Amino acid sequence: MRKKNIVVIGGGTGTFTALTGLKKYPVNLTAIVAMSDSGGSTGILRDELGVLPPGDVMRCLVALSSSTKIMRTLMDYRFDSGKLTGHKFGNLLLSALEKITGSFDRAVATAGEILRIDGTVVPVTLDPVNLMAKVGGKIIKGEETIQMTKLNGSLEHLWLQPMGRANPKALASIREADAVVIGPGNFYASLVPNLLVRKIPEAIRKSKAKKIFICNLMTKKEHTKDFGVIEYTAMLEKYLGGTVDAIIYNNKMPAPELLKKYAREGDALTSWRKLPKGHTMIGADLLSKRQSPITKVGTPSKESSLVRHDPARLASVIAKLLKIMV
Amino acid sequence: MRKKNIVVIGGGTGTFTALTGLKKYPVNLTAIVAMSDSGGSTGILRDELGVLPPGDVMRCLVALSSSTKIMRTLMDYRFDSGKLTGHKFGNLLLSALEKITGSFDRAVATAGEILRIDGTVVPVTLDPVNLMAKVGGKIIKGEETIQMTKLNGSLEHLWLQPMGRANPKALASIREADAVVIGPGNFYASLVPNLLVRKIPEAIRKSKAKKIFICNLMTKKEHTKDFGVIEYTAMLEKYLGGTVDAIIYNNKMPAPELLKKYAREGDALTSWRKLPKGHTMIGADLLSKRQSPITKVGTPSKESSLVRHDPARLASVIAKLLKIMV
Repeated sequence: MRKKNIVVIGGGTGTFTALTGLKKYPVNLTAIVAMSDSGGSTGILRDELGVLPPGDVMRCLVALSSSTKIMRTLMDYRFDSGKLTGHKFGNLLLSALEKITGSFDRAVATAGEILRIDGTVVPVTLDPVNLMAKVGGKIIKGEETIQMTKLNGSLEHLWLQPMGRANPKALASIREADAVVIGPGNFYASLVPNLLVRKIPEAIRKSKAKKIFICNLMTKKEHTKDFGVIEYTAMLEKYLGGTVDAIIYNNKMPAPELLKKYAREGDALTSWRKLPKGHTMIGADLLSKRQSPITKVGTPSKESSLVRHDPARLASVIAKLLKIMV
Repeated sequence: MRKKNIVVIGGGTGTFTALTGLKKYPVNLTAIVAMSDSGGSTGILRDELGVLPPGDVMRCLVALSSSTKIMRTLMDYRFDSGKLTGHKFGNLLLSALEKITGSFDRAVATAGEILRIDGTVVPVTLDPVNLMAKVGGKIIKGEETIQMTKLNGSLEHLWLQPMGRANPKALASIREADAVVIGPGNFYASLVPNLLVRKIPEAIRKSKAKKIFICNLMTKKEHTKDFGVIEYTAMLEKYLGGTVDAIIYNNKMPAPELLKKYAREGDALTSWRKLPKGHTMIGADLLSKRQSPITKVGTPSKESSLVRHDPARLASVIAKLLKIMV
């Protein structure tokens, strides 16, 4: 039987989680990755080397890698002293390869060979885009800054500058997909920026693929305050310019002390009390009970106290929906 | 027939050349590498990350790598902007692995696996040594500084601080060697520092291996002014505390314009007019006619104007001496 083509759209930790879970199933996996990251190690490399953002792409490569554990640990290693402080080794690898090959696309392919990935990682665009927002009349540049800006109720417009032409490989993989999985991921930083790239929403709408939205677990004070599954879905469909077929959402309460911690930051659990109509709705316990798989060495207490999707649980729900057997 | 064990002792470009040539022969190659480098990318990493010097070890790993060309190019890639300026990617790799594994020895082994090396690279010591010199009553610290210091006639003492205990793997490989090849390499920066490590000269002297010295092609104004093959050999044997069996030296004149260029820096061709007695003396045309194999992209004119050993010519002379067939 032909393996199904699953395209996961996103970029950050959530996409790492989805890929980590799904790679255990007999499917052809493609990750389409947002390219507007401008923070941390990635932001410095963009500024100082003039490269495209390596961070999210590298994370997906590691998720799909069938390389040794030490190789994957190496890619996630973050230098912690001197002028290298904060740089992730994997980001340096991808940026060096971009410099050597003269092309981010070839760099991603080469890094994929080095890491022996099973699947494909596709930057949504190969243009050096920045996320831009118009908020209360003011124009704000850069994902990193927008992350800290209050958007609730005052976001007038969100776009990429330059506009960003779709990577033809992204369009082709969406066209040939049996399922397009949007999320999980930071809503305005990882999910929406993919839909701001010209021709991408149209390609998803036109694709015969089953369109699945993995709804965010939590709301964010400044961006998605008071969002329930309904509001997240409506906002996603606004940027998509059409509807998704199925929505997978969490319906399990995390530990109260965890929610309290989030509440202190103004963040809350995404409510599933009311659900959108006209979609296949799949509620399940999607919560990770253990440490994040990309936990930094030495910070278990911090990472284990996050509300995160569990790779296996999430993948199992997606697989069931798509009738994929292990 | 049992493959012969050849141990090459050195560290810099010369060792890269010897390994590159010798790996085409059916031999077991081990490179023993000096660990006192304190300059450039390596020096910064030592200072800022507190790691052992990665540069020379990485160069040997690349020489012995059977990996793809892009992988080897990647290891030699030097960042050229921002805070990463000057850092070689391969050095960052080895340093990150040292941080992750907590051991330089394990880092070298892991990098060897990643680069699929054919042979073994052995740091001469795993202690964080610095090259020290007493010159005209003054104490000078660090190989980088000593490189620029006039030693001719005024070098009173050369040592490592801390003293540096021999890596047991270095001692074992010398013990089991059929041939120990010292050089080619920068005399005081790459060759002698290996002989300053306790127990190393003794191990070489006691080994049944044929001891071969690859004499330097050129003299250096501040370090080995007016040296001929005789003086180089005598100085090497002083630090070895014994004699070598064979000396391989160049007896071909480089192009006059090349020698003129060197003369402007005060450097000259090593004279073979008088030769030391009591050794097997092998004079041959050892000069590279083409660009250095580790030429940096975009600098062919500079690199092709250096007097360097040719990997194939040098290896062929060594192989003939040891009766090794291709």
